[in-house]
Amino acid sequence: MIPETMRAVVKAEATAGAELQTVPVPTIGLRDVLVKVRATTICGTDLHIYRWDRWAQSRINPPMVFGHEFSGDVVAVGEEVTTVKVGDFVSGETHIICGHCYPCRTGQFHICRNVKIIGVDRPGCFAEYVSLPASNAWCNDPKLDPAIAAAQEPFGNAVHTALSTDLATKTVLITGCGPIGLFAIGIAQAAGAQRIFATDISQSRLDLARQMGATDPLDSNGDVVAAIMAATGGAGVDVLLEMSGHPIAIDQGFSALRYGGYAALLGLPGRPINNFDLANHIVFKGATIYGVSGRKMYETWYQTSALLGSGKVNIEPIISHRLPLDAFEQAFEMMLTGDAAKVALFPAGV
Amino acid sequence: MIPETMRAVVKAEATAGAELQTVPVPTIGLRDVLVKVRATTICGTDLHIYRWDRWAQSRINPPMVFGHEFSGDVVAVGEEVTTVKVGDFVSGETHIICGHCYPCRTGQFHICRNVKIIGVDRPGCFAEYVSLPASNAWCNDPKLDPAIAAAQEPFGNAVHTALSTDLATKTVLITGCGPIGLFAIGIAQAAGAQRIFATDISQSRLDLARQMGATDPLDSNGDVVAAIMAATGGAGVDVLLEMSGHPIAIDQGFSALRYGGYAALLGLPGRPINNFDLANHIVFKGATIYGVSGRKMYETWYQTSALLGSGKVNIEPIISHRLPLDAFEQAFEMMLTGDAAKVALFPAGV
Amino acid sequence: MIPETMRAVVKAEATAGAELQTVPVPTIGLRDVLVKVRATTICGTDLHIYRWDRWAQSRINPPMVFGHEFSGDVVAVGEEVTTVKVGDFVSGETHIICGHCYPCRTGQFHICRNVKIIGVDRPGCFAEYVSLPASNAWCNDPKLDPAIAAAQEPFGNAVHTALSTDLATKTVLITGCGPIGLFAIGIAQAAGAQRIFATDISQSRLDLARQMGATDPLDSNGDVVAAIMAATGGAGVDVLLEMSGHPIAIDQGFSALRYGGYAALLGLPGRPINNFDLANHIVFKGATIYGVSGRKMYETWYQTSALLGSGKVNIEPIISHRLPLDAFEQAFEMMLTGDAAKVALFPAGV
Amino acid sequence: MIPETMRAVVKAEATAGAELQTVPVPTIGLRDVLVKVRATTICGTDLHIYRWDRWAQSRINPPMVFGHEFSGDVVAVGEEVTTVKVGDFVSGETHIICGHCYPCRTGQFHICRNVKIIGVDRPGCFAEYVSLPASNAWCNDPKLDPAIAAAQEPFGNAVHTALSTDLATKTVLITGCGPIGLFAIGIAQAAGAQRIFATDISQSRLDLARQMGATDPLDSNGDVVAAIMAATGGAGVDVLLEMSGHPIAIDQGFSALRYGGYAALLGLPGRPINNFDLANHIVFKGATIYGVSGRKMYETWYQTSALLGSGKVNIEPIISHRLPLDAFEQAFEMMLTGDAAKVALFPAGV
Repeated sequence: MIPETMRAVVKAEATAGAELQTVPVPTIGLRDVLVKVRATTICGTDLHIYRWDRWAQSRINPPMVFGHEFSGDVVAVGEEVTTVKVGDFVSGETHIICGHCYPCRTGQFHICRNVKIIGVDRPGCFAEYVSLPASNAWCNDPKLDPAIAAAQEPFGNAVHTALSTDLATKTVLITGCGPIGLFAIGIAQAAGAQRIFATDISQSRLDLARQMGATDPLDSNGDVVAAIMAATGGAGVDVLLEMSGHPIAIDQGFSALRYGGYAALLGLPGRPINNFDLANHIVFKGATIYGVSGRKMYETWYQTSALLGSGKVNIEPIISHRLPLDAFEQAFEMMLTGDAAKVALFPAGV
Repeated sequence: MIPETMRAVVKAEATAGAELQTVPVPTIGLRDVLVKVRATTICGTDLHIYRWDRWAQSRINPPMVFGHEFSGDVVAVGEEVTTVKVGDFVSGETHIICGHCYPCRTGQFHICRNVKIIGVDRPGCFAEYVSLPASNAWCNDPKLDPAIAAAQEPFGNAVHTALSTDLATKTVLITGCGPIGLFAIGIAQAAGAQRIFATDISQSRLDLARQMGATDPLDSNGDVVAAIMAATGGAGVDVLLEMSGHPIAIDQGFSALRYGGYAALLGLPGRPINNFDLANHIVFKGATIYGVSGRKMYETWYQTSALLGSGKVNIEPIISHRLPLDAFEQAFEMMLTGDAAKVALFPAGV
Repeated sequence: MIPETMRAVVKAEATAGAELQTVPVPTIGLRDVLVKVRATTICGTDLHIYRWDRWAQSRINPPMVFGHEFSGDVVAVGEEVTTVKVGDFVSGETHIICGHCYPCRTGQFHICRNVKIIGVDRPGCFAEYVSLPASNAWCNDPKLDPAIAAAQEPFGNAVHTALSTDLATKTVLITGCGPIGLFAIGIAQAAGAQRIFATDISQSRLDLARQMGATDPLDSNGDVVAAIMAATGGAGVDVLLEMSGHPIAIDQGFSALRYGGYAALLGLPGRPINNFDLANHIVFKGATIYGVSGRKMYETWYQTSALLGSGKVNIEPIISHRLPLDAFEQAFEMMLTGDAAKVALFPAGV
Repeated sequence: MIPETMRAVVKAEATAGAELQTVPVPTIGLRDVLVKVRATTICGTDLHIYRWDRWAQSRINPPMVFGHEFSGDVVAVGEEVTTVKVGDFVSGETHIICGHCYPCRTGQFHICRNVKIIGVDRPGCFAEYVSLPASNAWCNDPKLDPAIAAAQEPFGNAVHTALSTDLATKTVLITGCGPIGLFAIGIAQAAGAQRIFATDISQSRLDLARQMGATDPLDSNGDVVAAIMAATGGAGVDVLLEMSGHPIAIDQGFSALRYGGYAALLGLPGRPINNFDLANHIVFKGATIYGVSGRKMYETWYQTSALLGSGKVNIEPIISHRLPLDAFEQAFEMMLTGDAAKVALFPAGV
């Protein structure tokens, strides 16, 4: 029933690109499950690996199957697995934790000091099959769209960020309208934000921002801070959700934050930043800042299910393209050029 | 009873220095009190004004009496004053708030958008008399040492910083052992911190740090991060209290902070900082940061009274010198050279 | 322009009922404003005063104008008033605080130990004019419906209760669908609650509950706990908002609360309750409970403006009747029989 | 090396009492460890089992070895155990969690819905050997006194209670000076509480309370509330830690709590309580209440190690008696009469 080999997108060598290969189907341990992938979505991390940038060179050991956002059907379970069964439709939490470091022992699994990441530190999901610990499998409503089910993983990062503070009645600024920023706009809207400012340099992203619920999409190249100050009576926004990692956006975001405001930072600057006005951005403002790493395990998955299952957030518009897995090169190119927001790949075809 | 004129240290002209002058005793409004100063202590802000640095030039309008840390006896009250009476021994909260901005209307007085500061925006306390709103007068135990009573104002900044998170059983790093850093060490010790690391470049400050309760005084020029990592089993400290504003100390502090840790930032960098590793210092770490502005009004005053009144913190060693007000130049010089930690001045002599 | 006398509903004697009288227009102090009432709404407290129950007998000193929920136009201001001006359309925060007790000094104005309440401790708003401190006047959008503007005061209690915890993605139970419970349903819906259970014994109230956004209106006489357990997979609700003060509802509410859940209690039992299962309701459950007194001053007013001004909550259906002030007896009777949800009275007629 | 049988205190039949028997040494699973018990301490729960009260009858299935507070040496580990090794000196977390319920999946292990308790649901530690999952074994400093190491388990309940809020500079009332109440006094003192009130009916317990750091030991039969109000200027205490479960103490505790105060409830009333003044105790007061179940896993263990290892809390005085395991009947009798605070038993003799 389960074949011995499968098609998979493999980072074959320490250079740019990837190739479709036939590789062995993964084996599973006592507490693992084997999932037949229905859909997988492409993350920015996958683009780093594909392009083979400095970070990828330092972290990835080819040859390896990559990819980590997926949904699929459980086709085999290890002997000790009791919480998931063959036939369940699951998505995967990508972070495999050690369970015995200080963060793990105190329930802060998202900052496990010995985490292994699917598709980075062990074989990923751009393939017909993927294995993972049963405790990392999240059981979905069987009726959930497989592409949306796959995208729950990055959606969870947006949930972790946006729901790290109470947004009801708040004014919110989201800097950066990539997929996670766009998800966060939808979440902020569902959580009762009063007004949602969103910045990006791409007009098509700003159009998606409006579609997701941003009341004020703003071109990052304009005077974002002045516009927000004018709109908030000179106060600034209650909450900043920083999704870009870009120094200019970070500076704009903090400049537009009100005294006593709250900022959650998910975007990763590629290098240390210069000219950061710590005195005015944080100290004088009496601001509170929270760094967002991964997803709260598994609180954000419960929240994600609630938001997507209820229809309070509809991420359909963000999944801009759906292609067969074999068309992975086309998919990567579309994402690299910015033509696509989020691309879903289907091993069994579209 | 109340004379018409008094001796006062005046910033007479827009240049370095200050002079002792005879000026009119301040008048008081309906809701003000007049205080005969017993003791006044010198703050870093006063050094900026004395030296007439860029900040002082942009903010201070000479001629003006400066100084803002004081204690003394109420000698007159305005007609509508009901909560303070002649004869009360009081200290002064320096921040005079507007009461109608958004922070004030929501109890966040410490970030009032229209704050006026005694000794900066209005006449200060390096004088025989000072006036202030009755609501800014904090009634002391008559037995409290006047110099310590005066120093409650900067002590309150340390309280705001150190007690912005729960320190019981925590490992704590305090970067910068100026008076506020030293106060914070005493507070952390009183609040049950498990282990207190403190950094400075001055050996005499590190000696005071140990005296205040630091278990591990560390020379900033050494490998502070390695020492802390070794002492904490590779985890880093639970809490960073940043008191220096120095970029190197900030970098060391964040580098030594554990994943999921908490940092309160009070130190003010003189200019925007470069090479700030936001990704590793905040985002990946899942850190929480809080900017400390002023004192929680009046929560920190209650806490300050509890800490100093109970003897749980003894700040006597930090008040290194006691001089008559007329010796103000000597006092400023001692502080500028770093020979003194905190100097108290007494208008009526020592 | 301002007359010397006015019509007002007066609790004339220490007995049930009230009467319309001509009384002097209130005078104002230095920091007060005089408001010409446009609309006033009737609170449960007013029913206690009208019926002259035990609580009213112990608290109210007739003769006195009562009523405390209102909106109107500022027609005069005291000499020192700077934040409100003649012509402003305002609502009134009913709690007049002392400013110098411990809660006031620490920003917890809602639990001021010396609070005076308009319409209870000093003359109220069932009249053509009412006076209050300028700081208690909340400036409204001139376009806001006067009846809704008046009802912001009790709406604020619902805001304080419902937004005392983060409701996004949560399952919520609201016990008691009087006006404040109904307001809370609307707020929970706007704040992104996943599912909203609401209980009452009145079918008409449950119909209003559904209209306000309750997904599961439940008859309190049925097996509420079983229904909620079935609907939540045996877990119970994340959040209880207790609005009834009724011992049975309180018991149902805690029984339906999940382990680790949160309960905000606003309803006031008329007397100490019996058979309260503290061990199972609170201790074993690891529950967190918050007692709701008044409104967070003035945070809930900002939140109220945001919710009502944006249209995220529409309380129009809850203001079931609109009558001239002179028809106050009819209004009280309708509320006492339960025929009305919330009645608005208009001194100038409907 | 490991014998086949051992001595153990067994609840042999469904009646009062217990007997020393020779029983098989427990076997261990893949992820378990076997511990040779050095010391075990007696908990109130053990008294319930010994006396065979209603709760015990409903929960315990004789014959069974009971007892759950212990320390000892690891003598064998299951094949998959990597975090504990033979020779480690460990204590045991008594709650064995399921890992897959909602609380477990969100890091709230202390309220696991499927918890199994050592000595209640599975064989306990009043024996020469006990088995438990490796993840429940807490590695101690080899120099820690075995009796104190055993008592870390109930000490953790006191830590969970006392450190559920920040105690620095706070006034605290602890109602009930059994062992956990006494532990809490020591913790409150170490965490910087300003003043510690403690109530009990036993003078010897109040003497111990003073020894542990209570500034104001108070006889519960006196007017506790009046005494506390007088001592706090009419305000009441900031924090209540309820350790008795007794309705009178609960009532006194809430009556003495200040407006806006915080109460953590650990004591378990034997039955639902009557005449609970919810309106005045919780609602009007704007109080926050937290129900304490078990220990935060494993945060309280880290905190416990920090407090006991540093010597900030010395629980030596509370371990009033040390006896060989064979003298268990004498030990139970001493605790039932109240002659002993905490008794430690040693399988290998004292």
